Amino acid sequence: MTALQDARPHVTTGPIRGSHKHHVEGPAGLRVPVRRIALSTGEHHDVYDTSGPYTDDSAAIDLHAGLPKLREPWIAGREPVGGAVTQLAHARAGVVTEEMRYIAVREGVDAELVRSEVARGRAVIPANRRHPESEPMVIGKRFLVKVNANIGNSAVTSSIEEEVDKMVWATRWGADTVMDLSTGKDIHATREWILRNSPVPIGTVPIYQALEKVDGDPAQLSWEVYRDTVVEQCEQGVDYMTVHAGVLLRYVPLTAKRVTGIVSRGGSIMAAWCLAHHRESFLYTHFVELCEILRRYDVTFSLGDGLRPGSIADANDEAQLAELRTLGELTRVAKEHDVQVMIEGPGHVPLHRIRENVELEEQWCDEAPFYTLGPLTTDIAPGYDHITSAIGAATIAEAGTAMLCYVTPKEHLGLPDRDDVKTGVITYKIAAHAADLAKEHPLAQARDDALSAARFEFRWLDQFHLSLDPDTAVAFHDQTLPAEPAKTAHFCSMCGPKFCSMRITQDVRDYAEAHGLTSVEAIEAGMAQESGRFADEGGRIHLPVTDRT
Amino acid sequence: MTALQDARPHVTTGPIRGSHKHHVEGPAGLRVPVRRIALSTGEHHDVYDTSGPYTDDSAAIDLHAGLPKLREPWIAGREPVGGAVTQLAHARAGVVTEEMRYIAVREGVDAELVRSEVARGRAVIPANRRHPESEPMVIGKRFLVKVNANIGNSAVTSSIEEEVDKMVWATRWGADTVMDLSTGKDIHATREWILRNSPVPIGTVPIYQALEKVDGDPAQLSWEVYRDTVVEQCEQGVDYMTVHAGVLLRYVPLTAKRVTGIVSRGGSIMAAWCLAHHRESFLYTHFVELCEILRRYDVTFSLGDGLRPGSIADANDEAQLAELRTLGELTRVAKEHDVQVMIEGPGHVPLHRIRENVELEEQWCDEAPFYTLGPLTTDIAPGYDHITSAIGAATIAEAGTAMLCYVTPKEHLGLPDRDDVKTGVITYKIAAHAADLAKEHPLAQARDDALSAARFEFRWLDQFHLSLDPDTAVAFHDQTLPAEPAKTAHFCSMCGPKFCSMRITQDVRDYAEAHGLTSVEAIEAGMAQESGRFADEGGRIHLPVTDRT
Repeated sequence: MTALQDARPHVTTGPIRGSHKHHVEGPAGLRVPVRRIALSTGEHHDVYDTSGPYTDDSAAIDLHAGLPKLREPWIAGREPVGGAVTQLAHARAGVVTEEMRYIAVREGVDAELVRSEVARGRAVIPANRRHPESEPMVIGKRFLVKVNANIGNSAVTSSIEEEVDKMVWATRWGADTVMDLSTGKDIHATREWILRNSPVPIGTVPIYQALEKVDGDPAQLSWEVYRDTVVEQCEQGVDYMTVHAGVLLRYVPLTAKRVTGIVSRGGSIMAAWCLAHHRESFLYTHFVELCEILRRYDVTFSLGDGLRPGSIADANDEAQLAELRTLGELTRVAKEHDVQVMIEGPGHVPLHRIRENVELEEQWCDEAPFYTLGPLTTDIAPGYDHITSAIGAATIAEAGTAMLCYVTPKEHLGLPDRDDVKTGVITYKIAAHAADLAKEHPLAQARDDALSAARFEFRWLDQFHLSLDPDTAVAFHDQTLPAEPAKTAHFCSMCGPKFCSMRITQDVRDYAEAHGLTSVEAIEAGMAQESGRFADEGGRIHLPVTDRT
Repeated sequence: MTALQDARPHVTTGPIRGSHKHHVEGPAGLRVPVRRIALSTGEHHDVYDTSGPYTDDSAAIDLHAGLPKLREPWIAGREPVGGAVTQLAHARAGVVTEEMRYIAVREGVDAELVRSEVARGRAVIPANRRHPESEPMVIGKRFLVKVNANIGNSAVTSSIEEEVDKMVWATRWGADTVMDLSTGKDIHATREWILRNSPVPIGTVPIYQALEKVDGDPAQLSWEVYRDTVVEQCEQGVDYMTVHAGVLLRYVPLTAKRVTGIVSRGGSIMAAWCLAHHRESFLYTHFVELCEILRRYDVTFSLGDGLRPGSIADANDEAQLAELRTLGELTRVAKEHDVQVMIEGPGHVPLHRIRENVELEEQWCDEAPFYTLGPLTTDIAPGYDHITSAIGAATIAEAGTAMLCYVTPKEHLGLPDRDDVKTGVITYKIAAHAADLAKEHPLAQARDDALSAARFEFRWLDQFHLSLDPDTAVAFHDQTLPAEPAKTAHFCSMCGPKFCSMRITQDVRDYAEAHGLTSVEAIEAGMAQESGRFADEGGRIHLPVTDRT
């Protein structure tokens, strides 16, 4: 690989506070990683783990060597089906691949469900044969909602080292896939370092690199330049690629009256090309050739929404929906070639118009997994767009969206730094989990219940360790009650010792049980009797609860 | 007032960046404040303003003197209706009060709508006659969604000065009401300083102070102690009071099997009292006397949800819903006494069970305004509960909730500091606005459109000034492009000069117009003709777009 300026690039390693890497034994010798959270009760709670070897104390990390090639033997040992090596081809042939078995363990479902969902095109497994380092994962509405984190340098900022560090950092906090959106120098080298060291699937937008090759002039783009770029990225191991093949020449005028026109970079580049040549998009006219290329590597299409709305005013408009119909047409072409497909979605959409996006996508694109950017539910909060979009993301995921592309606090203002990446990932894990709960995913609520039980029982450390971000939970608690004893105190700084509702509740429970007042019947029976009887016992619970501090 | 330790307590004054205080002339000489944002185009954009005189450069602020008594002459000049001075009594009698006229201007609606919504009990105007400093506002589903900010010291932290500063700070960023939840020393004095200096209605939970008077032992509480506390707070000018009168003795056992029992402080205190005495809650048995007290001052009931769920596992359970039915019964009693009522709601609720809360509240409580805490849509993110709850808050507000009680990042971990208060308020303004957009409130989308237009036209300063938090927007932009010229640059650090989709879009528009390609028809007509024709013109748009930097 290209040498880095920094010979010893730094990435964050070691387990997340209160947990350690554990491997669950799966069928056929599969070892599937989980993050095992040890509780003070002696029990433990396992959670889905996207962080790869970096959080494994027993793993030796060498960025120059790259991660172990977990999938290499599986890929080598697999015969093509009908000439195709894709997970889709195998699923259709009834073959349950090692990737599917691995995923079934991660998701707590039957491997046959994974196969059948992939076979019908309602789920995808982004897994380029040239990226054997990745730990298999699935994207589909029947599974846990996934989160993507965008990284990548631009012409004005960042280095290779920073981007590799961001990739590791994003997966540490739960990113299920990472997109490298680099547009500056060293695009190829940056991607190489990221791929060889990434435990999650990597996505790209090839048109960005293609445009670099023609000095940033969209009119100078050609099918040949684009095709060669796609092949180059397939060879490197990119797992899924955003292709804005639905931006057709005749749709461009539909954006003329918009408040924010075309906000997708890829979409605006292709619109410029179409108008400059007054020809149909080469991505559309050469789409079958693209399918043949991606098919050879099992690269998944992420059909881009180049005409997505960039403001509340432009939501669900004619331009957006016309493109979505075309993406449905291309979905069918891709599947005919055994190529996996997901569909990208908006953008900026008000709450009451979000569900329509999912319904139309499922209807027009045969339920191909929907992959949305937010959507942002208002335009008025730059600096807080992780929040404006988390509201939309939870809503659209509840409606059936399979993967959420995070938005960081820097959206519209600048490139995310390390802290922004973490904030974006945690915020989107919240949105994804809220949707998993709403969809009643079997694995979802156990963690909420475990954390809430710890909270009620004042097991502070368990509460922190079960949370999405233990470091921040501990830091916030310490700001008001830094003393170590407070970690076991039966109160917190919100109410202080005397007012704690949870402690009063416990006293209430103890008292009720001591007096058999544990049912409505018992209570009413008691009330029927001569009053003052309880006063004889002292007429009060043996509070003050401060006794228990 | 009690002297403060600090003779010159500090609060933040002066306009928010890019705006200034303006007064709109209303009917009958009313002067209604708005925050006027000046745009670089020479236009301006007015937004709802909760900040009071503190953001008015022409106002002299003296915390020891308190704010001007805006409503004093209105109150003095008004005759009781049927012996009642409440806004509800006047509304029912067909009287449009000055408060209603003032509110109509703020909300951009007809004053008669305000009167009729108050008359039918679907909206409340919290406005104690003893708090004439407050600027009238309305809480109801037909109006803009409102946000409450909780402040207040506890036994272990904070001072009077800090709490007054937090009140001013919260209203600066958009808090429509403030609740003083102080539980420590100086409860009376803290409240006095807050009331005399607050431009927004102030809410309290009287049981907290009553409990202080009996040394924190719930069993020692009595109707007399509570009544005297309520009178004391009514006299001071508290505008609305949380009363947990729905926590009945027979409901207590319903909480025994819960994961988190009773998490409401007031609820747990009353449950403890009921069990200790084995008697029905004095708040319930003396509710009519409470109505007679609140009626004299026009204090609004906020009927508390003492049995709200404190975890996803406990959402919408028997205990919660039994209490809600009782709150409906009490709502009718209060209205018979011409006392305004709103209903408090949960809590912790998964996304798919939120709407049911609004539907049952409207059905059982005659559409009295619903006032909810979040709800949090998952338990697993302590440190980020402003976000877990903003998702639920936007959803429940879209369904008809009238006011949202904010949750700060410190929820479950500690008391919010000044930064947490701001983060909580801005986050909840986002949730409220997202709901206003979804409800298609006439005033809502204009701000989104203005900001998005500024964004598309690279009017960076206008974009910042139109945002909910201009200071943060500017600070984030400066982190990557600090140079002043960047404020007018036609690109940002996300894509750099060559890739800006918005600029390419503008080029596309210019080109399309120059060649008459502004309709699908024109495009298709052009395509039908001999190709290469456009190549003769150079075959490209006159990019590179870097020409325009």
